[in-house]
Amino acid sequence: MYERFWQQEGDKATIVIPGWQSMSYFSDIGNLCWFLEPEFARQVLRLHKIVGNAVTENRHIVVGTGSTQLFQAVLYALASQDSEEPVSVVSAAPYYSSYQAITECLKSGLYKWEGDARSFAKEGRFIELVTSPNNPDGFLRDSVLNRSGGVLVHDFAYYWPQYTPITSPADYDIMLFTVSKTTGHAGMRIGWALVKDREIAKRIVKYIELNSIGVSKDSQLRAAKVLKVVCDSCESSSNTTESLFEFAYQLMVERWQNLRVAVKHSGMFSLPEFSPGFCKFTGRIFEPLPAFAWLKCEEPIEDCESFLRSNKILTRGGRHFGVGPQYVRISLLDRDDNFDLFVERLSSIRKDNLYQHMGE
Amino acid sequence: MYERFWQQEGDKATIVIPGWQSMSYFSDIGNLCWFLEPEFARQVLRLHKIVGNAVTENRHIVVGTGSTQLFQAVLYALASQDSEEPVSVVSAAPYYSSYQAITECLKSGLYKWEGDARSFAKEGRFIELVTSPNNPDGFLRDSVLNRSGGVLVHDFAYYWPQYTPITSPADYDIMLFTVSKTTGHAGMRIGWALVKDREIAKRIVKYIELNSIGVSKDSQLRAAKVLKVVCDSCESSSNTTESLFEFAYQLMVERWQNLRVAVKHSGMFSLPEFSPGFCKFTGRIFEPLPAFAWLKCEEPIEDCESFLRSNKILTRGGRHFGVGPQYVRISLLDRDDNFDLFVERLSSIRKDNLYQHMGE
Repeated sequence: MYERFWQQEGDKATIVIPGWQSMSYFSDIGNLCWFLEPEFARQVLRLHKIVGNAVTENRHIVVGTGSTQLFQAVLYALASQDSEEPVSVVSAAPYYSSYQAITECLKSGLYKWEGDARSFAKEGRFIELVTSPNNPDGFLRDSVLNRSGGVLVHDFAYYWPQYTPITSPADYDIMLFTVSKTTGHAGMRIGWALVKDREIAKRIVKYIELNSIGVSKDSQLRAAKVLKVVCDSCESSSNTTESLFEFAYQLMVERWQNLRVAVKHSGMFSLPEFSPGFCKFTGRIFEPLPAFAWLKCEEPIEDCESFLRSNKILTRGGRHFGVGPQYVRISLLDRDDNFDLFVERLSSIRKDNLYQHMGE
Repeated sequence: MYERFWQQEGDKATIVIPGWQSMSYFSDIGNLCWFLEPEFARQVLRLHKIVGNAVTENRHIVVGTGSTQLFQAVLYALASQDSEEPVSVVSAAPYYSSYQAITECLKSGLYKWEGDARSFAKEGRFIELVTSPNNPDGFLRDSVLNRSGGVLVHDFAYYWPQYTPITSPADYDIMLFTVSKTTGHAGMRIGWALVKDREIAKRIVKYIELNSIGVSKDSQLRAAKVLKVVCDSCESSSNTTESLFEFAYQLMVERWQNLRVAVKHSGMFSLPEFSPGFCKFTGRIFEPLPAFAWLKCEEPIEDCESFLRSNKILTRGGRHFGVGPQYVRISLLDRDDNFDLFVERLSSIRKDNLYQHMGE
């Protein structure tokens, strides 16, 4: 989806790295995060300041191999090595499916997945993951567990002005961001954490040291360049150039319009409805335009994923996200032709397809 | 250490990546390893063929964020999700210190560090890590546990002709390699595994999917370029150009000579002695020139690391590697001036420093 913007920008975001550069493990030996490229850190700070989506004062920046690696590093950092019991990890359903898969995959004795935060009633320490806007359903979120003994981790992958109004700078202890959802460069595998507590930041760094001895310098340098172009595109006063966020916002408006028309047309699905909000970055009032559509099949369809599969639409079913099979998640960030094909297929679904499906 | 070679090569290894390239998560959707850049895979195969250090026929290539991530992926792949008991992980001492730290850090229920393979007597399934040439001591190695129920993982980070004679192509089920020790580009964080069994390769890929949703494309593309230049430098018939391996070999010969002179001079340390071997790649007979020196302090020094620290030499003590404190590991891959300074400091250590140290 973002490809066209970067093509329009031409050579501005091109990176050139000679063979003899960036050979060492180290990027900034004086820094707590010794593998953090200083120029990447500078552009991260600059971008947050321009967009106004996060407080960066008195925060440590830790770079990761995507926010996925940072999520695991945060679990490691918040768990106690000495505790007999693993710390509980929860998130309000529907939650990002990978949280569960990652937390459980190594059967760690440090932390344990306990599922939906709303039904969590165990004693003891816990980590609550708060994704806002939420993946998969797009709603803004606050923590739901209002009791002591817990630490909050805020995943702000989608708190950017193409997806949701920026109402105020987020100001939490541990905040995760990722280049892939900001600029579209998923292949870079670069994310960053803003961390208030120095000791926690050090333990996040320690995990990344153990897990991959730092983070690709090449991708950090490229991310720095790409974020610089994004910042420049926001600060440019010329009317002929469009910022990345404006480009992506216009595309998201168009895609959500087409999707809502198709859903209405079929009469068999529903989508979440969002309240508009005032975006301090754009000065515009708009309804959230999430990166994913959280589609619900209406009765009598019970398994939305398999019903859509029979109509040649591949989605991810609700069970992965801790809810029922009547829901599916659909990405709105695909290439134009794939998205158009999906909308076309969705709007051509009729009741007779349904009866065919039920009879199978 | 490798920087000078890459400076000599000039622009040949320069990589240029426009902003709109390599944006997707995917590199090769038809491939078992869907995040593997095809050009990187091609150059890996080409390099093994030229050097003759590994059999690549009927192997799956899996790329990782350094061989460190691949090591964890292999543990995940070989452990059973259903088993009550974790699989034992062992390696003959002295072993690479990170093996223990990584295996233990998350208190995984899938695998458990059991230390020195030579004293391992537990029943049940095990994974034996075989590093050859070995880190830290430089010796060529075979597995020491000659019994059923085990799987071998071969770490061939140092099986390259600047460090040891290439006697035959390695031919094992799971073999790990890393760009950092091959070409010096540690900051790329790129390693690769050659894996015989398809199901194991799939599970290695699965772990990397969970851990970091693939591997930096930028670094894979740069690694492909750098390996291409290495291959070209080997195939070039001109006498004016030197291959990377020849460049690094000459440097290692010089460094080991200087180190052995300094050690002899002090009279207080000893180094491993190696038998010469015939290298099929260079056609030359030579003694191994390991990337690390495994230095032993002679009596009455008991703690070699702290003794050297008092002489302004920073090393890593034997206890990290599963043996006693009379040993330390010293890198021979540092920049020229750092290495020269180290040799200078080592050769200036005299018995009176020793008595000072003992009196502290």
